[in-house]
Amino acid sequence: MSGRLVVIGLGPGNASQVTPEASQAVASATFFYGYKPYLDRLDLKPGQTAVASDNREEISRAGAALEKAASGAHVAVVSGGDPGVFAMAAAVCEAIEAGPVEWRSIELEVVPGVTAMLAVAARIGAPLGHDFCAISLSDNLKPWDLIERRLKAAAEAGFVIALYNPISKARPWQLGKAFELLRGVLPATTPVVFGRAAGRPDEKIAIAKLGQADPAQADMATCVMIGSPETRIIERDGQGPLVYTPRFSAVGQR
Amino acid sequence: MSGRLVVIGLGPGNASQVTPEASQAVASATFFYGYKPYLDRLDLKPGQTAVASDNREEISRAGAALEKAASGAHVAVVSGGDPGVFAMAAAVCEAIEAGPVEWRSIELEVVPGVTAMLAVAARIGAPLGHDFCAISLSDNLKPWDLIERRLKAAAEAGFVIALYNPISKARPWQLGKAFELLRGVLPATTPVVFGRAAGRPDEKIAIAKLGQADPAQADMATCVMIGSPETRIIERDGQGPLVYTPRFSAVGQR
Repeated sequence: MSGRLVVIGLGPGNASQVTPEASQAVASATFFYGYKPYLDRLDLKPGQTAVASDNREEISRAGAALEKAASGAHVAVVSGGDPGVFAMAAAVCEAIEAGPVEWRSIELEVVPGVTAMLAVAARIGAPLGHDFCAISLSDNLKPWDLIERRLKAAAEAGFVIALYNPISKARPWQLGKAFELLRGVLPATTPVVFGRAAGRPDEKIAIAKLGQADPAQADMATCVMIGSPETRIIERDGQGPLVYTPRFSAVGQR
Repeated sequence: MSGRLVVIGLGPGNASQVTPEASQAVASATFFYGYKPYLDRLDLKPGQTAVASDNREEISRAGAALEKAASGAHVAVVSGGDPGVFAMAAAVCEAIEAGPVEWRSIELEVVPGVTAMLAVAARIGAPLGHDFCAISLSDNLKPWDLIERRLKAAAEAGFVIALYNPISKARPWQLGKAFELLRGVLPATTPVVFGRAAGRPDEKIAIAKLGQADPAQADMATCVMIGSPETRIIERDGQGPLVYTPRFSAVGQR
């Protein structure tokens, strides 16, 4: 008997940014697997069961959810933001590929959501208005020198850079090192956006210049964006500044 | 008298992927500016007015919307997907920066949405599960050689590449040229996803290998994704294959 697994993106954390499709998917499932803070966002009804696991246990969580689905249950795996961006959709695919063949007949659905960089960008203007990239700064799953190579390649080619997982207790120095490396490639005046908990009550959005950007402004809930050489700041009287990257690019990059 | 301008992301085109925040923003505004196919998605009430403009007229559309808002009106500019990704939020910021100083006191809000690459990724697995970039293939706003440089840099550094605006009547050869260039950097077996109109009735999602990828599979409504050397395809009996990029990366890139 083969059940159903839906991987749901709950958006940045504000109920008004959860799509109706995601809400419907939550309403239909019976068992919920996820990192506890995401499960805590759900308003589960009697008969719905949440199974919490820790932040770093993505692959075992995916396996447990698939096993439950394979038994015939209707299972949901929940992610903040979009499940396809540094989140559970890839972990579920990894588990399916490595797992028993019957997991391949589980009906799998992924429900997209508003990922953090889009929510942060919306709060500050349009920093992602031109070509951009998203890099996870966590070196738990890839070597640090590869991250450095990607940062350098992206900055040199004129991409705006959105950094996910910029800092944590276990990874305290990586963001500072990334800023240091980028200072060697980009002008010191390049705008940097620290977007924390966009759309949530504890939201904090701050702007800095790359030359002075302080890693201590970021925490685990922050998406950090580093502009391209064309990213601009518009000062406004009586309102916060806007940060945006023009759609056009006439200049050559290094 | 200074009004209000809200730039709204309507998502990929499926009503169930429009956030409640976006629906609320539509319900509150009086004048709507946008490309006609996006305005056609709105269910406007008496007293709400739509002002359609052509696809390529983003900056004049932004100016008209700002002028209306400056007169005290509650104005909405609508985009498909997310307004911050190759869409109207940057055009509005450009117009504010270049426009009369009073436009800077207009209350500006950007409402994020599910952008095309996230919707396409969700339909096929998790192709964006690792570091990725988004590139507009339109050379209307930047020189083609810059696009080539970015494609090459991104592929060499191991980013998955999502291409927006891959092809149009006025830009018929660019996608073929991009595939040709990428074939010089990436294995011929690299998965390519053609994601057309994800979530809409005319959705069509196709997978190819880079060696055989045919630009004719794309149209204006398609988001094309080119995997990294680590992107994988999982074949499944009785269900479509999954395309995903593992979260981890142990190998060095060129």
